[in-house]
Amino acid sequence: MQNEERVAKGRQLVERMFGDGILNYLEGKAGSEGFGSQGARLALRDIFGGVWVDDTLSPRERSIATLSMLIALRAEGEIQNHVRGAVNNGLSAKEIEALILHSAYYCGFPASGVALQAAETVLTEMGKLNNAE
Amino acid sequence: MQNEERVAKGRQLVERMFGDGILNYLEGKAGSEGFGSQGARLALRDIFGGVWVDDTLSPRERSIATLSMLIALRAEGEIQNHVRGAVNNGLSAKEIEALILHSAYYCGFPASGVALQAAETVLTEMGKLNNAE
Amino acid sequence: MQNEERVAKGRQLVERMFGDGILNYLEGKAGSEGFGSQGARLALRDIFGGVWVDDTLSPRERSIATLSMLIALRAEGEIQNHVRGAVNNGLSAKEIEALILHSAYYCGFPASGVALQAAETVLTEMGKLNNAE
Amino acid sequence: MQNEERVAKGRQLVERMFGDGILNYLEGKAGSEGFGSQGARLALRDIFGGVWVDDTLSPRERSIATLSMLIALRAEGEIQNHVRGAVNNGLSAKEIEALILHSAYYCGFPASGVALQAAETVLTEMGKLNNAE
Amino acid sequence: MQNEERVAKGRQLVERMFGDGILNYLEGKAGSEGFGSQGARLALRDIFGGVWVDDTLSPRERSIATLSMLIALRAEGEIQNHVRGAVNNGLSAKEIEALILHSAYYCGFPASGVALQAAETVLTEMGKLNNAE
Amino acid sequence: MQNEERVAKGRQLVERMFGDGILNYLEGKAGSEGFGSQGARLALRDIFGGVWVDDTLSPRERSIATLSMLIALRAEGEIQNHVRGAVNNGLSAKEIEALILHSAYYCGFPASGVALQAAETVLTEMGKLNNAE
Repeated sequence: MQNEERVAKGRQLVERMFGDGILNYLEGKAGSEGFGSQGARLALRDIFGGVWVDDTLSPRERSIATLSMLIALRAEGEIQNHVRGAVNNGLSAKEIEALILHSAYYCGFPASGVALQAAETVLTEMGKLNNAE
Repeated sequence: MQNEERVAKGRQLVERMFGDGILNYLEGKAGSEGFGSQGARLALRDIFGGVWVDDTLSPRERSIATLSMLIALRAEGEIQNHVRGAVNNGLSAKEIEALILHSAYYCGFPASGVALQAAETVLTEMGKLNNAE
Repeated sequence: MQNEERVAKGRQLVERMFGDGILNYLEGKAGSEGFGSQGARLALRDIFGGVWVDDTLSPRERSIATLSMLIALRAEGEIQNHVRGAVNNGLSAKEIEALILHSAYYCGFPASGVALQAAETVLTEMGKLNNAE
Repeated sequence: MQNEERVAKGRQLVERMFGDGILNYLEGKAGSEGFGSQGARLALRDIFGGVWVDDTLSPRERSIATLSMLIALRAEGEIQNHVRGAVNNGLSAKEIEALILHSAYYCGFPASGVALQAAETVLTEMGKLNNAE
Repeated sequence: MQNEERVAKGRQLVERMFGDGILNYLEGKAGSEGFGSQGARLALRDIFGGVWVDDTLSPRERSIATLSMLIALRAEGEIQNHVRGAVNNGLSAKEIEALILHSAYYCGFPASGVALQAAETVLTEMGKLNNAE
Repeated sequence: MQNEERVAKGRQLVERMFGDGILNYLEGKAGSEGFGSQGARLALRDIFGGVWVDDTLSPRERSIATLSMLIALRAEGEIQNHVRGAVNNGLSAKEIEALILHSAYYCGFPASGVALQAAETVLTEMGKLNNAE
């Protein structure tokens, strides 16, 4: 896969995972020379256009990995983004809950509690937590 | 699945992932009243006989999650154990390397460097890094 | 102590430490199959009905330990809950301040600053910081 | 340098870095016996009147060090304060951005993202991010 | 309590908790101008001669707090020192084990596992883990 | 500066900071397809050939930043490497000691203690700690 092709695939992935609002925001930043523009280029070129599009692991598996890392790091805001991304990469609410419960034993109950709350917020917004559950 | 059945399945998983040396060690501890016995019971009953055997996520996916958390936590010794477990749950050396490279962007290069070294040690011991690679 | 008895004692402890609002919330979650219900069962059965009611350490000592861990982990929201719990397990505002100052040397001044602010908020709400101090 | 002289120099540094609002707040706390007074005395006497005024490293270099530590610790609120301090110790917006990009590789992209946002907020308030950039 | 008196009490505490080897090492460093001398003076004057001798919390309670923070920070080497200190401040092996099990739920199983191993090493050296246990 | 030129400058920096043993090791890895080769390419291309050679901050300042981050992350092995790099970027033993003492207040005394020991080992090897100090 050529470099340009990878970056294009990375942008598609950003759009699918987080929506075109986030994609446009990152592309706007990345195309400027303003504060934070280098970070946006790093995200689009090396993170999404680099590791995420490498199919040694599937997007679903990379969402599991990323959420696990963010929970361990207690990165609250990013957990919300990546719960959305995980759903759009095919994880169900039940699977995300199972991942968070798993984290309770490895990262501690407080870290999993923060994640549970962040996930509940996003899953509710996305209509993934219905009465039947 | 009944409680007893879960714990039995958890023990099988410990044996498959880490070998019967570790299983015997944990069972010996768990069956005693000595120092660390409660921790061993927690591992066998709640962690392996609890979350790990819950099939909402597969053992392969739980290995991805666990390794990701341990890398983020910089838990060097445990990374070695769980690289072994991950291989025995079906991850190839290439997949483990991809996971660690992914972690470089989310947890920082130093955390991924520690993991790379730990993984190289274990994968070499297991004969998973041959010349052809 | 039988299992059931422990869980009952754990619920009493949750009520004393955090109030019946939190107890009812956790029991409601734990009695459902909804998102987060497994986490609530873990809290009531294994954490409060498990380690907290084990009298090898007193509730007062477990509050000191828990607050210390949460400060080190920078778990801001949980610090607020456990300052309340600590007061209800017998720690005075002066003792909580001394614990936070101790943490400045072991966890760094920024971690202790976050804790100081969280504690001041809760202790003020509880009427524990009066003019005389 | 005598002790008293150091503390006096430390207060001047606090005023220059954070403004006299913060200095007055800390001095008010430090002069009282209220909750948090010991922490304020530690800050004025040992941190600002101790390490910060030791000229083995310049204030500019100590701002680089402090921001780096706070980013690694994910100490969001304190990052905001110390971005302000760093500007007042002579770092430009470009230099702060470069430091945060550096941190992306050592502390992970999520940690640098939190810092970037905190820095953007403060630098905008201080009028350091103009259109031309 | 005068400053000098506090420092003297702090030295006695260091000797009781860690033995005179450590006390002599720290005093030697603190009395020199060599590398690390400022750190040794900080330890003797502000940490042991400061917070540790403040009797708002007892040495036993400060040992519980310190161990809890070190477990959460995964500070392996220091855990060994402070297990020794905790025993010399009156904690039994059973109480230390209970504290570590408590930490499994708050800091995660891997953090508690590191602590369990460190504690077992030191408690064995100190002859506190006999057959009867 | 063109991409190729940056990478060439990055290699010179690696050689100056860590010696040609490390440079050869990284180049060997980076030129292979073996385990860890992607990590080595990331280091040479993006970290040393990317941020480190960007002269918005000097190598001396980037060494201060990197050491600060590594101390906060408790990344013991990497601290040793970067103490060596810092000396080769112009920091004296006294300046490194001042940085570590600074970290005691921001990251906690245990984190600074680990760094002090790592630094003492490397500085002694490099002949930077003589009797006169």
